Amino acid sequence: MSDPVENHDVVDVIRAKRDRGELSDSQIDWVVDAYTRGVVADEQMSSLAMAILLNGMTRPEIARWTTAMIDSGERMDFASLSRPTADKHSTGGVGDKITLPLAPLVAVFGVAVPQLSGRGLGHTGGTLDKLEAIPGWQANLTNDAMLAQLEDVGAVICAAGAGLAPADKKLYALRDVTGTVEAIPLIASSIMSKKIAEGTGSLVLDVKVGSGAFMKTREDATELARTMVDLGTDAGVNTVALITDMSVPLGLTAGNGLEVRESLEVLAGGGPQDVVELTVAIADEMTRAAGREVGPEELRAALADGRAMDVWRRMISAQGGDPDAPLPTAAATETISADTDGHLEHVDAFAVGLAAWRLGAGRARKEDPVQAAAGVELHVRPGEPVRRGDPLMTLHTDTPGRFARALKALDGAWRISDTPPTTRSVVLDRITSGG
Amino acid sequence: MSDPVENHDVVDVIRAKRDRGELSDSQIDWVVDAYTRGVVADEQMSSLAMAILLNGMTRPEIARWTTAMIDSGERMDFASLSRPTADKHSTGGVGDKITLPLAPLVAVFGVAVPQLSGRGLGHTGGTLDKLEAIPGWQANLTNDAMLAQLEDVGAVICAAGAGLAPADKKLYALRDVTGTVEAIPLIASSIMSKKIAEGTGSLVLDVKVGSGAFMKTREDATELARTMVDLGTDAGVNTVALITDMSVPLGLTAGNGLEVRESLEVLAGGGPQDVVELTVAIADEMTRAAGREVGPEELRAALADGRAMDVWRRMISAQGGDPDAPLPTAAATETISADTDGHLEHVDAFAVGLAAWRLGAGRARKEDPVQAAAGVELHVRPGEPVRRGDPLMTLHTDTPGRFARALKALDGAWRISDTPPTTRSVVLDRITSGG
Repeated sequence: MSDPVENHDVVDVIRAKRDRGELSDSQIDWVVDAYTRGVVADEQMSSLAMAILLNGMTRPEIARWTTAMIDSGERMDFASLSRPTADKHSTGGVGDKITLPLAPLVAVFGVAVPQLSGRGLGHTGGTLDKLEAIPGWQANLTNDAMLAQLEDVGAVICAAGAGLAPADKKLYALRDVTGTVEAIPLIASSIMSKKIAEGTGSLVLDVKVGSGAFMKTREDATELARTMVDLGTDAGVNTVALITDMSVPLGLTAGNGLEVRESLEVLAGGGPQDVVELTVAIADEMTRAAGREVGPEELRAALADGRAMDVWRRMISAQGGDPDAPLPTAAATETISADTDGHLEHVDAFAVGLAAWRLGAGRARKEDPVQAAAGVELHVRPGEPVRRGDPLMTLHTDTPGRFARALKALDGAWRISDTPPTTRSVVLDRITSGG
Repeated sequence: MSDPVENHDVVDVIRAKRDRGELSDSQIDWVVDAYTRGVVADEQMSSLAMAILLNGMTRPEIARWTTAMIDSGERMDFASLSRPTADKHSTGGVGDKITLPLAPLVAVFGVAVPQLSGRGLGHTGGTLDKLEAIPGWQANLTNDAMLAQLEDVGAVICAAGAGLAPADKKLYALRDVTGTVEAIPLIASSIMSKKIAEGTGSLVLDVKVGSGAFMKTREDATELARTMVDLGTDAGVNTVALITDMSVPLGLTAGNGLEVRESLEVLAGGGPQDVVELTVAIADEMTRAAGREVGPEELRAALADGRAMDVWRRMISAQGGDPDAPLPTAAATETISADTDGHLEHVDAFAVGLAAWRLGAGRARKEDPVQAAAGVELHVRPGEPVRRGDPLMTLHTDTPGRFARALKALDGAWRISDTPPTTRSVVLDRITSGG
C-alpha cells in the first residue's frame, strides 16, 4: 500500500464486526498492519477473530484482509524462470502424501512446481516432517537456491521463508490457542495470502472433507473452496479447487517415513489406487492451468516409466538427501487383526490420524520433535475382503509406552460387514471461478 | 470451593461456547480460576468473552460463573452490625448522582448502607470522582473503618477493596479493551459477584435504559435486570430491580462538583423533581427490603427537615471531608442559548455525557485525572417552556481548549417544539424474583 494507513480505534473495529457490520477497507488495512506491529494486542485480535468466526465476512472483506496480510511482508517473483509455475495446496488430511509424488510428476512436463510447505500440528502430518525422514534432506533454502532448483530440477519442496505474510504467521499462532482456527474467512485468507505473495502463476487447491479433515461437511468445504478460488482469481492467479474425500485415510500409511515409502511406490508405478488417482487428478489440473496439458494417460505413463522418479531423485539430492538411503524403521510394532470375516467397510480417518500422532508421528507443540518411523500402516483398504485373523493394521513407534493410547484411538474406528461397499471416487467435486 | 478444580483444555472450553454449547460447572470453575492465576491467557479469555457475548449463557451457567468469581477472592460479612444492611447498584447513567442523597436518606431509618463504588470510565461519571470534588474527602477505607462508620453513621461510600472478586477486576479490564463489555451474562455476573461477596442482606438495582445508559433498549435492560434479580435471589440476597429512564440526563447537572452541588440541593429539601423522585423510589425499596418500610411521605419529610442532611455531613466528615468547604468552580464557562421559543422537547443523555467527558469530567484511561469542576449544567428541564435567547445550558471546564469538541457533541442533541411534551415517570418498571 502506498497510501499511509489511517488510524482507527481497535475497539470500534471489534464492535463493528461483533454487531454484524462490514469492516471498511481502511479498518482492515489498519487492524492487520497494527496487529503485525504489535499496536493491536493479542487479546484484541483474538476477540475480533472470534467475532469473524461467528459473524462471517463478505467477499470484499476477505479479499481486502488477504491483501493486507500480503502487504505485511515481501512478495516473491517467478517471472525470471523459463518455465511456467503451478502450485498446489492441500487443506490437510490423514495420510496425505500427495505432494511427494506430485511435484516431480508435474515437473516432468516442463512446469515449475514451488511447494513452500509447513510442519504438521495436530493429527495431519506436515510435508517437511515427511521428507525429513530421508537421511540428509534439508528443508531450508535461500530464495536464490530455490529459484535455481526450480529452473534446474523443476520441483522444490522447502520451508516457507519468514518474509511471506508475517501477519499470517502471527495470526495463525494466535488462532491456534484461542479456538478461532475454524473461521472460513481466516482459513482462506491465511492460505491464499501466502500463495499470492509467493507469486505462482496458477494454483490447484485440494480441499479435503470428512472426519480426517478440518472441514467436516461438504457445505463447509465447498464454501472454503469457492472463497479461495475467488480470492486467487481476483488476484490474477489461475485457480481451481478439487473437493476430495477424507473420511478414510489416503493410501495405506499415516506417518512420516511410512508415507515416503508409499510415495516411492507411486513413483515406481505402483502404490495404492486412491493415492495414484488423486496425484494424477491434481497433476492434470496443474499442467492444464500452466498451459502444458498432457492428460491423465501421459501422466500415468510418466509414473510407470520412471520419468517422475528421475525428477524425485534429483529433487531430493539437490537438498542434500540421499535417495538411496534406507528409510528409518520403528523400534517396536504392534498389529491389529480382523475379528471376523467380511469386507472392510470403513476405517475412520481421524482415528488413524490421532493414533499416528499418539505414536509419535506428530507434535502437540510447535517446538516438539517428531519420530521419523512412527505411524500407522493399513494392510487392507476399505472395500477389500478380509478374513478373521488377517492383519488389519500395524502400529509403529520408537516408544512402546505409546501403544496403549494409540490403540484406544482406534477402538471402534473400523467396521467389517457382510456386503462389499460401493467404491467411490476420491475426487468429489471441482470448483472453478464463477462455475 | 472445597473440591480441587478439575483441569480442562482452554481451547476445548472456548470451542464449546463458540459452538453454542453449555459450559459445565467444572469448566466454568476451572476457566475462571485459571484466568485469575494467569494460566489462561488474556487472548484466550477475550475470545471466550466474545463467544459468550454472541452466543449467550444459560441461567445455570451465569450463576456458576458468578460463584466462581466470588470464590476468586474474599467475602465480607456485615452480620456484626446492629442494623440491617441494604445496598444499591446503578448500571450507570448521565447525571446519576442518586447515591449521594440516597445513602444518608436510607441511613436515617436505621438501615446500614454500604456503597462500595468505583471510578468513572467513559461517558458516565463515577461516584468516587464526584465525592472527591469535596475538599479533604478520602475514598479509601480499611474494612474495619468501613464497619465502624456503618455502625456509627449508618452510611458509607468508599472504594471497593482489591480483595472482592479479583477475577472480575481482571476480566473487566480485559473486556474494556476487547469490545466485550456489552455481554449481559458478563455484566450481570460482574455486578452481582461483588455485591454477593460484599455480604449485603438486600439489594436494589437501578437498571438504566436509553441513550445515556449501557442498555439502549427496554428488552436488554429487562433481561439484565431479571438476570441479576435471579442471581441475587439464588444467592440468598433480597433483590429487586427498577428499570429507569436514561434517555435524558438525570437532574440538571453532569460533572463531579456540579453533581455534588445538586445533591446538596436535594438533601436541603429541593433539587430537580426527577432526582428527588428516583432517590425516594430507591430509598423506599431499600428500606422495605431491609424490613424498615417507612413509605415515600416519610422519606420526603426526611429530606425536607434536614435529617438526611445531618447524616450526609457526618458521613462526609468521617472520611476527612469538609461539608462546609466551597466546591471548586471551573476556570471557564460557555453558555448555549435557545434559538427559538417553545418547549424543550428533548435533551439527549448520551450527548450531554459525552460533552461533560470532553470538558474534563471523565477519563479515557483508568490512570487519567478528572477535573472536579468540569461538566454540563442544564438551565431548562425537558418539558419546560423556553424563550429565544434564554440560556439552555452552561459548559464548565478548566481547559477552554476543550469547548470546541464538547460543543460538537451537543450539536443537534436537543429539540425545542411548539407543544409541551407529556411528562413521564423516571421509574419505568419494577422487576422482582419470579414476578
